[in-house]
Amino acid sequence: MSSIELTSTDLQEILAFTTALARKAGDLILRGSEAILSSGNVDEKKNSVDLVTEYDVKVEELVKGELAQKYPGFQFIGEESYAAGSRPPLTDTPTFCVDPIDGTTNFVHGFPHVAVSIGLIYKQRPVLGVIYNPFLDQLFTGAKGLGAHLALRGMAPKKLPLAVPRPLPSLSQALIGIECGSDRSGSIMEIKAEAYRKLAGDPKAGVDGGRMAHSLRALGTAALNYAMVAQGSLDIYWEIGCWPWDICAGTIIAQEAGGLVAGSHSSPLDNDINEPILNGRKYIVIRAIGDTATEKGVDAQKRLIKDFYATVGDYTPQ
Amino acid sequence: MSSIELTSTDLQEILAFTTALARKAGDLILRGSEAILSSGNVDEKKNSVDLVTEYDVKVEELVKGELAQKYPGFQFIGEESYAAGSRPPLTDTPTFCVDPIDGTTNFVHGFPHVAVSIGLIYKQRPVLGVIYNPFLDQLFTGAKGLGAHLALRGMAPKKLPLAVPRPLPSLSQALIGIECGSDRSGSIMEIKAEAYRKLAGDPKAGVDGGRMAHSLRALGTAALNYAMVAQGSLDIYWEIGCWPWDICAGTIIAQEAGGLVAGSHSSPLDNDINEPILNGRKYIVIRAIGDTATEKGVDAQKRLIKDFYATVGDYTPQ
Repeated sequence: MSSIELTSTDLQEILAFTTALARKAGDLILRGSEAILSSGNVDEKKNSVDLVTEYDVKVEELVKGELAQKYPGFQFIGEESYAAGSRPPLTDTPTFCVDPIDGTTNFVHGFPHVAVSIGLIYKQRPVLGVIYNPFLDQLFTGAKGLGAHLALRGMAPKKLPLAVPRPLPSLSQALIGIECGSDRSGSIMEIKAEAYRKLAGDPKAGVDGGRMAHSLRALGTAALNYAMVAQGSLDIYWEIGCWPWDICAGTIIAQEAGGLVAGSHSSPLDNDINEPILNGRKYIVIRAIGDTATEKGVDAQKRLIKDFYATVGDYTPQ
Repeated sequence: MSSIELTSTDLQEILAFTTALARKAGDLILRGSEAILSSGNVDEKKNSVDLVTEYDVKVEELVKGELAQKYPGFQFIGEESYAAGSRPPLTDTPTFCVDPIDGTTNFVHGFPHVAVSIGLIYKQRPVLGVIYNPFLDQLFTGAKGLGAHLALRGMAPKKLPLAVPRPLPSLSQALIGIECGSDRSGSIMEIKAEAYRKLAGDPKAGVDGGRMAHSLRALGTAALNYAMVAQGSLDIYWEIGCWPWDICAGTIIAQEAGGLVAGSHSSPLDNDINEPILNGRKYIVIRAIGDTATEKGVDAQKRLIKDFYATVGDYTPQ
């Protein structure tokens, strides 16, 4: 199997297939949401958490099944593979890396930022990604060498980023995605709250080391936060605690939109998202930045990631 | 003018007119966004902040002009009225209270959570509201005694909340909207970061007084945060620093969807949003909650607001 070679034409074909599959998964997610919303009726036996699990499994079965049938030589990574205790080492074989429902907390609440995220890893790097939010009909796609696109509400796909990349002089101009996540112990919450205080705080008004970011946002889904960076709407997104399936599709979509993706504080800034980073559970992504007379955009991306990491603390996810 | 009396039929007619007007304003907002996105081109003279101001004024002129023509006896409150230094006292006369572009930071960045918010105050209370996000085609409407509705992506309007209201036993089940806002001085950021830490933090893992909320979200727009509470997707939204036009439309939409709206820590919990609260710049809103065998939903709303305010600090907005 490790001898499978993927050409650009193959990627195009896989993109068409996975896009159609993501829409099909999206329909199932919407049906699940209706079941969850109507479960508020006290006559219903199942509670919403059971229903979330039920639809998480249903969507994964749909996606995994169709992928296995169409691409029998490819491998598959998802929450189940890891939950089962086995963490198969990445090989050079094409490997789908799928989150059936990214944003399960949102899914429970009907907060309309929920997506199916289908990524493809090849030679140990993300090479293709499809992220579809059926609630708002947002379809984000990307593949190595083929660019990244958004098809919104059935309209013709637009190339990402949506605008000519602007310069980004400092974090004070940045709209930053930051989530409280699920690790909520005392020591970790100290670091998160301190990151919040310093990123938002005004250094001229008593916040020592404050960066006075333009503002902070939290959509509650890694996949859609990556997509927002790819489209240029968020400038930076930082996360500790995600898994490969949360960020695989988003990584290649952001990269193809000119974004720089990296791992932890000590990660190299060369946009090479290989095994240690994919499995490292620490991620940062910054949008395409326009060149200025004195600084290339890619140098600004690196400078801003360094400044971001100088601002926020590091910790080990639980 | 103070002798104008509004009937339910009047409200229905005003709702139809303001809904059509909000869609027209939405088209203008989209055109503004395209102008801003393409201003990244260094050949353009105007920067994005100029363009935001330009479109903020354009949208306000459109809305204010059409409202004045159709309803000449009504008054009008907006950012401009207050910025001009005069803060006209609320009278019993019907008064439109409008934010032409709620979420201007999002607007600058192309983050697709931006809305025109048209509210109507009558006898000093919000009685009608229209919130329209043209980026995602989300139209939220509500009027006193007529219920609240969402028309999403051209689909038929759905009654809000979207689901039968479920019970909400404690803040630990809640999805909470909390924004870093624009007040970023040291003392205020201490309170905000501490609110973040305590709302999210796990009391069983070292966060003294932590509430372990289900999660925290930040869309960056008061109007759409209210709308999310109205639809039942956010459980609670808290804000200090907003102005009446940010929350007027949202208030009546949330109330008509069964939500409870209140002001500061010391505010009465009787859902009477009168002058001191409308102008008080401190707001909290909680979704409709289902009754349980032991507690009525409205009592749960009050209990949870009290618990929320016992968790977060108070401060005076700048």
